[in-house]
Amino acid sequence: MILILKPDATEDQVQHVVARAEEMGFQTHLSRGTFRTIVGLIGNEEKLQAIPLTAIPGVAQVVPVMSPYKLASLDAHPQPSVVRVGRVPVGGGNLAMIAGPCAIESLEQMRTIAAAVKKAGANILRGGAYKPRTSPYSFQGLGEDGLKILREVGDEFDLPVVTEVTDPRCVERVDQYADLLQVGARNMQNFVLLSEVGQAEHPVLLKRGMSATVDDVLMSAEYVLSQGNSNVILCERGVKSFDKATRNLFDVAAVAAVQRLSHLPIIVDPSHATGRPDLIPACAFAGIAVGADGVHIEVHHCPEEAKSDGPQALLPEQYSELVDRIRELASLMGRRIPTADGEVA
Amino acid sequence: MILILKPDATEDQVQHVVARAEEMGFQTHLSRGTFRTIVGLIGNEEKLQAIPLTAIPGVAQVVPVMSPYKLASLDAHPQPSVVRVGRVPVGGGNLAMIAGPCAIESLEQMRTIAAAVKKAGANILRGGAYKPRTSPYSFQGLGEDGLKILREVGDEFDLPVVTEVTDPRCVERVDQYADLLQVGARNMQNFVLLSEVGQAEHPVLLKRGMSATVDDVLMSAEYVLSQGNSNVILCERGVKSFDKATRNLFDVAAVAAVQRLSHLPIIVDPSHATGRPDLIPACAFAGIAVGADGVHIEVHHCPEEAKSDGPQALLPEQYSELVDRIRELASLMGRRIPTADGEVA
Amino acid sequence: MILILKPDATEDQVQHVVARAEEMGFQTHLSRGTFRTIVGLIGNEEKLQAIPLTAIPGVAQVVPVMSPYKLASLDAHPQPSVVRVGRVPVGGGNLAMIAGPCAIESLEQMRTIAAAVKKAGANILRGGAYKPRTSPYSFQGLGEDGLKILREVGDEFDLPVVTEVTDPRCVERVDQYADLLQVGARNMQNFVLLSEVGQAEHPVLLKRGMSATVDDVLMSAEYVLSQGNSNVILCERGVKSFDKATRNLFDVAAVAAVQRLSHLPIIVDPSHATGRPDLIPACAFAGIAVGADGVHIEVHHCPEEAKSDGPQALLPEQYSELVDRIRELASLMGRRIPTADGEVA
Amino acid sequence: MILILKPDATEDQVQHVVARAEEMGFQTHLSRGTFRTIVGLIGNEEKLQAIPLTAIPGVAQVVPVMSPYKLASLDAHPQPSVVRVGRVPVGGGNLAMIAGPCAIESLEQMRTIAAAVKKAGANILRGGAYKPRTSPYSFQGLGEDGLKILREVGDEFDLPVVTEVTDPRCVERVDQYADLLQVGARNMQNFVLLSEVGQAEHPVLLKRGMSATVDDVLMSAEYVLSQGNSNVILCERGVKSFDKATRNLFDVAAVAAVQRLSHLPIIVDPSHATGRPDLIPACAFAGIAVGADGVHIEVHHCPEEAKSDGPQALLPEQYSELVDRIRELASLMGRRIPTADGEVA
Repeated sequence: MILILKPDATEDQVQHVVARAEEMGFQTHLSRGTFRTIVGLIGNEEKLQAIPLTAIPGVAQVVPVMSPYKLASLDAHPQPSVVRVGRVPVGGGNLAMIAGPCAIESLEQMRTIAAAVKKAGANILRGGAYKPRTSPYSFQGLGEDGLKILREVGDEFDLPVVTEVTDPRCVERVDQYADLLQVGARNMQNFVLLSEVGQAEHPVLLKRGMSATVDDVLMSAEYVLSQGNSNVILCERGVKSFDKATRNLFDVAAVAAVQRLSHLPIIVDPSHATGRPDLIPACAFAGIAVGADGVHIEVHHCPEEAKSDGPQALLPEQYSELVDRIRELASLMGRRIPTADGEVA
Repeated sequence: MILILKPDATEDQVQHVVARAEEMGFQTHLSRGTFRTIVGLIGNEEKLQAIPLTAIPGVAQVVPVMSPYKLASLDAHPQPSVVRVGRVPVGGGNLAMIAGPCAIESLEQMRTIAAAVKKAGANILRGGAYKPRTSPYSFQGLGEDGLKILREVGDEFDLPVVTEVTDPRCVERVDQYADLLQVGARNMQNFVLLSEVGQAEHPVLLKRGMSATVDDVLMSAEYVLSQGNSNVILCERGVKSFDKATRNLFDVAAVAAVQRLSHLPIIVDPSHATGRPDLIPACAFAGIAVGADGVHIEVHHCPEEAKSDGPQALLPEQYSELVDRIRELASLMGRRIPTADGEVA
Repeated sequence: MILILKPDATEDQVQHVVARAEEMGFQTHLSRGTFRTIVGLIGNEEKLQAIPLTAIPGVAQVVPVMSPYKLASLDAHPQPSVVRVGRVPVGGGNLAMIAGPCAIESLEQMRTIAAAVKKAGANILRGGAYKPRTSPYSFQGLGEDGLKILREVGDEFDLPVVTEVTDPRCVERVDQYADLLQVGARNMQNFVLLSEVGQAEHPVLLKRGMSATVDDVLMSAEYVLSQGNSNVILCERGVKSFDKATRNLFDVAAVAAVQRLSHLPIIVDPSHATGRPDLIPACAFAGIAVGADGVHIEVHHCPEEAKSDGPQALLPEQYSELVDRIRELASLMGRRIPTADGEVA
Repeated sequence: MILILKPDATEDQVQHVVARAEEMGFQTHLSRGTFRTIVGLIGNEEKLQAIPLTAIPGVAQVVPVMSPYKLASLDAHPQPSVVRVGRVPVGGGNLAMIAGPCAIESLEQMRTIAAAVKKAGANILRGGAYKPRTSPYSFQGLGEDGLKILREVGDEFDLPVVTEVTDPRCVERVDQYADLLQVGARNMQNFVLLSEVGQAEHPVLLKRGMSATVDDVLMSAEYVLSQGNSNVILCERGVKSFDKATRNLFDVAAVAAVQRLSHLPIIVDPSHATGRPDLIPACAFAGIAVGADGVHIEVHHCPEEAKSDGPQALLPEQYSELVDRIRELASLMGRRIPTADGEVA
């Protein structure tokens, strides 16, 4: 930690800063420049993160030297982690191909879509049972009935399943039905929920919040990891922007940035990132090309009748064509799509 | 609702759109322009919000004509609402002066600060018992012990109290201790929590999310209102920005924009909006001048020892001077600061 | 300047960094922490700004200690500057009340509006002769004919005049007609234009760019100042945002932030910041309350026939009422509106 | 154009709107809904763009039906345009590989870099002679001497050259030396400059502004096209963001969005988009995968001595490796890299 003092910091203030630092067990290192005095603090920086250093009189700026997360960082785990979802390995060159409708609407609907995406090459089935909707008057999901349908269809088609959990009181229940627990963008800093999924048995799919920085995402992952659940997959799904050309702004560089800081797998969600089916394939390719560990795509056999997010869903035949092209691209980039059985060609 | 069709929409698609709309009980109104066909749908727009209209082939754009919230809108309640927090009226010209530390640290600390802010003219005492911290390694609050301290100190100094609730499982407990339940920025779209506080006995202080639009805030308020709790106070606390000169970007115009759409009181929080004590007074004045129904400010008697957000707290004497000036400004603008007893001079 | 080295910087790299710094005439100060080595550079920081320090192998981060501008900073001039526009003092408690239409359309139009805003209490008349329009097919302004009208009407009503200059080739011409040269938001980093107005005789009104940080604005002011023109007035006019509730996001805190860094006067432009006449008065009050040195407002006697930006103009009678209230508010805040003759009541 | 009237619009206002529209030569189409009246205007929408429709009393919202640009749109030219830079075709499956230093520093430097990038496979050489720097104290470029060096080196290595023009007074001069004229991000809405390059002989490389929407970019291109220069190449180079993990936010989806609206080629610039050499290759791949028509990359043989933007430059050997991989990827995506002679393998 480096403290840059104010240009007009008095000698008393300098001494007070040094005294406070040493009181906390740090070695200090004073450097008096032409215009400013700088205090280097040597010791365990984590302890300092709890101290309001900029509130100490005379301190202008605090420059952290270490990252604020540790379990999520490459320092803790220099090799890319491989997270298993059912039998499917994700990360380390293995791509998660997550597909399915936004919301679980009926057994029939899920069977139709599961059959199609399995055939296309998806290895994880998605479907929402608890839907976080901006309007209280919109369809809120089928709840536990939806979970049962998802599990049944996952078993029938031999696909591991992922579904969102929005309520800390439901984590245990969702953990019984699902192979992967999704925490949505709006809940990325719902720390109560993060702590709860940190105690779940199954891995967690953590979506980036709409205005979360790369560091914020990794701090949220740290919440889950610090509770003992070491299986976290991150997901870039677009951030808020001034441009309404796309629903969100797909931050493809964040995938590469995360991979230089963390060992956790990170996938992309071009469905939410763009909100436009006509751009989804191109953005899925971009995600694979940049190095993402998988692609999350919403697929519906009849978007105009979907109960949620229909306008951004791909049709099964569009998805199938997309997977074929992703397979080629992945192969060129030295990666592969495991089957739902976890077989890696 | 207006549907703008694609330039190349076929006659079949036009007929399909009309048929779908009439099937849902709407009258349609077709307008064929030089380059585009437009379909006006006449009827209850709410029903349409659930339908993925842009997923219908041939539809390019959907233009809603009504706002998606109703209980929160001026249509439902054309006069400004007055929400009572303890005996303090908020709204309709009455200003909430909320002050206190970020986190409740001890009985002693709360007594010191409560005495000071009461004397300065604050009419509501704040203090956090459950702290949503970005790092799992930071101080997380005293929990129920904190709530007890807050209640005790509020009673001693005859100040109604506000504290944040972060967990739907704690809403009932917090509702027993507090006079006003805060939903924080990071939980503004935690719809599970919103539904729960919608069933609480006490009013709700709903802070704007970091990348929430004015419409998003009002939709979140609608969640609370739709559960039966009609007492919601909104709070502008800055949004995410590219400029790090201030912690967030204080969106003072949003206060005025909300007041032209909704009857709910809206206050400002210059502490979180700026993160800089040197800018808090100026921004508090701006908030009052723009028409806000109150000011939320963090006050600590020893910021450098505060366990949370110390660097952005005002000292009690700074707060006292600020309230004096706010009182004058409010008076010029035709508004007033009620006492904690609810007396309006 | 502080260089934070990478965790894995080799001893050779450390020595290379030190050697490079000393070669440039700096004293170095090495601080080896538990995890990182830090190099403090003591000497004239300006010289370092030209050197790509982060390109030196082993360097992770460069932390500047001084601000990159000097003439614009409070260090260079600790008291607020007062800039004279015609005979009107701006800054140091004196408010610029700039009003007029977006575009100069005719002599008749300018006379009508000038008479009205003068009577209302405006002390500077605005009008655009060269309009930077996003569409090449929109009205581009009357050019030099417009300048002549503006000058004539300014003289007739004894109001100093401000108009935008967009082309470095026109600076000399505009300087002959106008009392204040405006550089618009879209040209805030048009450094060629900045250099040119830096050589003009009259003062410059520099509007903040749509995604310019406070530091960016001050660097652009530095361009003008460094050419010898020491009379610069800044203007906050809203930045780009994800929320379309207002045309731009009015960054009222930036006014206070600038005043803690620079001696230059800074005014607000609620017309462009909000784009909504119904919010302009409230945001003008907020600007005055936060400490701005004036208000720029677009006024048109017939907005629906205006050739540019009609939808955001106030009517003359609305403007008149607004000035009355601003006068009261300014007086409470210890500031005042000089007359166009420069008289300060 | 569709006008949505206010809920409380009077019958007089409705009639005034209709009268105004018909006066301008439009057919109107009135649709009275349950809550709102809507007026469709049928006719040439371009004429309406000049009219401040929202300033007409009773009008709440104006919904345009056509895009505001025409020469840039796919309607005007349904097939992708191919722009020739020297002999190199860009667009329609042909990739521009633009490489070189940020600033031209000397003949020696340019010869070294040109030799390396030519060998690596670049087909256009870049170098800045006029540098738009945020600080007036930074290196501003060699000016015309730089242009001469660039031309000489381009001729020696048989590479067409691109350089930035920042001043309308220099367009003619730059047009004499360069094969492609760059308009930088900060000048994207410098309409005076756009008009000037619209009259140049050579094609224009138009970089997206830091907070420009996709529509803004296309409107700026329209400025150039409307002056008669039909050869415009667009360039996505990142937009402003709240996250400092990368210098800007690389908006890869914008490439795909532009291609669905316009026939103009669009390339990506991962150097400026990320500002981080370690992320440049991954983002270049993403750009190619999403469908970009080329890649602009800064290359310097000694970044730590570069006079501008050294920290974001690739080394020649890194660039060479990158081009090899881009070639493979392009081939998979059905595209190709022409040689500098314009040969397409």
